Amino acid sequence: MAKFMDVHHSMKGITADQLREAHDADLAIQGEEQVTFEKAWADPESGVVYCLSEAPSAEAVQRIHERAGHKADEIHPVPLMVS
Amino acid sequence: MAKFMDVHHSMKGITADQLREAHDADLAIQGEEQVTFEKAWADPESGVVYCLSEAPSAEAVQRIHERAGHKADEIHPVPLMVS
Repeated sequence: MAKFMDVHHSMKGITADQLREAHDADLAIQGEEQVTFEKAWADPESGVVYCLSEAPSAEAVQRIHERAGHKADEIHPVPLMVS
Repeated sequence: MAKFMDVHHSMKGITADQLREAHDADLAIQGEEQVTFEKAWADPESGVVYCLSEAPSAEAVQRIHERAGHKADEIHPVPLMVS
């Protein structure tokens, strides 16, 4: 398992309800690919959304996002983290 | 106060120690601009680093990053979050 940050660039105008709905669509099927979506942050003005997940691969993250109707534009493994 | 996600694109090869050092340099002076850097995630292979913060403005985030020696390439307010 590894951590991934994926990015969507075309979510201009996204509302809190739409972000919740999109996230819930991921959560509903993520178990089929052993993916866990942890958090997502959105900027409705520029349309960028960042999703943090734990998953076996970037491809697994993308398969869930695609099936949920919102393919990611970038997916990066983020093996390093500080807090 | 608002949440921000900022992105650095030129951190190829960054190590865990370097990420910790860069984050500590931010933490050391963040109080001067009322910024709180919460987490940072790095992909050493592509060189992208994401930093999540709480701050009065994007400009305040950038001033701390600049003074710490690592200006951000993008800073987005992220008023929406789900988990």
